[in-house]
Amino acid sequence: ILALASGILAGPGGAAERDPLPSWNDGAAKAAIIAFVARVTTEGGADFVPTDQRIATFDNDGTLWAEQPGYVQAAFLMDRLKDMAPQHPEWRTEQPYKAALEGDQKAVAAGGMRAIDSLVMATHAGMTSEEFAEAVRSWITTARHPRFDRPYTDLAYQPMIELVTYLKDQRFKVYIVSGGGVEFMRPWTEAIYGIPPEQVVGSSIKLRYELTGDSPALRRLPEIDFIDDGPGKPVGIAKAIGRRPIFAAGNSDGDLQMLQWTTLAPGPRFALLVHHTDAEREWAYDRNSAVGKLDKALDEAPGRGWLVVNMKADWKTVFPFQR
Amino acid sequence: ILALASGILAGPGGAAERDPLPSWNDGAAKAAIIAFVARVTTEGGADFVPTDQRIATFDNDGTLWAEQPGYVQAAFLMDRLKDMAPQHPEWRTEQPYKAALEGDQKAVAAGGMRAIDSLVMATHAGMTSEEFAEAVRSWITTARHPRFDRPYTDLAYQPMIELVTYLKDQRFKVYIVSGGGVEFMRPWTEAIYGIPPEQVVGSSIKLRYELTGDSPALRRLPEIDFIDDGPGKPVGIAKAIGRRPIFAAGNSDGDLQMLQWTTLAPGPRFALLVHHTDAEREWAYDRNSAVGKLDKALDEAPGRGWLVVNMKADWKTVFPFQR
Ligand SMILES: [Ca+2]
Ligand SMILES: [Ca+2]
Repeated sequence: ILALASGILAGPGGAAERDPLPSWNDGAAKAAIIAFVARVTTEGGADFVPTDQRIATFDNDGTLWAEQPGYVQAAFLMDRLKDMAPQHPEWRTEQPYKAALEGDQKAVAAGGMRAIDSLVMATHAGMTSEEFAEAVRSWITTARHPRFDRPYTDLAYQPMIELVTYLKDQRFKVYIVSGGGVEFMRPWTEAIYGIPPEQVVGSSIKLRYELTGDSPALRRLPEIDFIDDGPGKPVGIAKAIGRRPIFAAGNSDGDLQMLQWTTLAPGPRFALLVHHTDAEREWAYDRNSAVGKLDKALDEAPGRGWLVVNMKADWKTVFPFQR
Repeated sequence: ILALASGILAGPGGAAERDPLPSWNDGAAKAAIIAFVARVTTEGGADFVPTDQRIATFDNDGTLWAEQPGYVQAAFLMDRLKDMAPQHPEWRTEQPYKAALEGDQKAVAAGGMRAIDSLVMATHAGMTSEEFAEAVRSWITTARHPRFDRPYTDLAYQPMIELVTYLKDQRFKVYIVSGGGVEFMRPWTEAIYGIPPEQVVGSSIKLRYELTGDSPALRRLPEIDFIDDGPGKPVGIAKAIGRRPIFAAGNSDGDLQMLQWTTLAPGPRFALLVHHTDAEREWAYDRNSAVGKLDKALDEAPGRGWLVVNMKADWKTVFPFQR
């Protein structure tokens, strides 16, 4: 019955008859991914993995969608700051608000983590979770990427969307595990990637339950709850999933520990790094980038057997609109 | 295709032809549950709920399994304390360990939350997550309930197992949302209830990622991360699921806010409280119980339209072994 249901769910033709990764160039990267998936899904094979243990975790910024010239959530933050400024005349003189509103990134940076924290809390806390989700939904449908002049959601990587879909078709449970805010991502991950809210793990601020009359709400408090980045990623995975992934994808040193946690264990395991090598279609950056710095993880990849995806060489298409 | 797959997954005969809740006596409680499920799963009906929004959350202690004469996790704690005592000669004189080891609950209680915290951390922190899971697995297969002289896992409620299975068959995603420790529950919830680790939400202590040579591990630290109880339950649901349930089940005031959060919103919604009224087959307790106190939620239930399940009258069987 399960095999039959699986066959039905895989759709007409079945996975074997069509190319599951048409936006990947034929080559070692694509072949390695397909070979791994075949290994763990072949019933009776030595490396067969039962469906409930097929957990895959994907970083978001720079792995599933573009993170240049800056994180999308930072653009959201800046737009909110500008929207809110008329109600906060004190921001005209107070730092770090003044610097941020004037686009003086150097002055903001001089304020360190404390300045960033102030800007995050001013724009991301105080409202209810539902109000925040509504603000995100409204912003993401109207904001446009500075280079491509398109909605940010158009900047998802076509090859990675295909990879997520391929894994889902092969009965993997696919999660996002991102340093980004979990309540910033959940309103749109299902529409772009087919990943539902309950499979999104991210950073968070504290929430407080409130009941006003007969109206319950969750209030977003100006206090960090959890940072899902670097060594926080395996912790976030343990908290939210409680299983160890067998497949992980990232693009920066913030994914180093997630890739270690995924691969340094018995049984078949796979990890990949998206290496941004395509200045023309996307961006080229790694060891010296302020956003998405890829240095230690790039050094560790060969010894650990992690696949380094060369965006320029391995991807036929980068963004869906470039097809 | 989906309807076909759903029919296949529902098993031979289909849900309509057999009683999905055979251990529930025919009556208003059983009828109310079945009527609600029919309402939200009837395609084309006014109250149809798409499958991805069919989120159900169940408290564990006293809702899915017995919590008398004390929480199962407290029995685990005491057994671990005794096991560890030979390595801790200082516990013979130090409080609260001395009192706990001597079974002097009054002296432990006199130490307040701080004493409880010390006992929890001494027995639940310091090891890795995998070591802790192994300790739980080992304990739960050997420990026996003091009254029934059976494994604690035999003390799951047969009618509630049927309810979880029924909701799953009707394509609900069923979560445990418990004040108990998430890493205490995950090793056994799938075997008893059919609820996988990633659908278990609970209280937690902080974890730290460690890499020793090529061996990564998550270390359990002696510091509370999150208390998933009372007003923490809607917060835990938001953190882990990011969707609002449409169905919730609890048994105590610790579930009050989860039931409010689930039902005080538009659309079809359902909540139930298991009322422990059966001193013979299980226990009878509510407003004055030290464990599983049910007072405010019992008062609120009629006005909110929450179903109060009368264990004695509504359940044909309580435990599977009583069939
Ligand atoms: Ca990234
Ligand atoms: Ca309970």
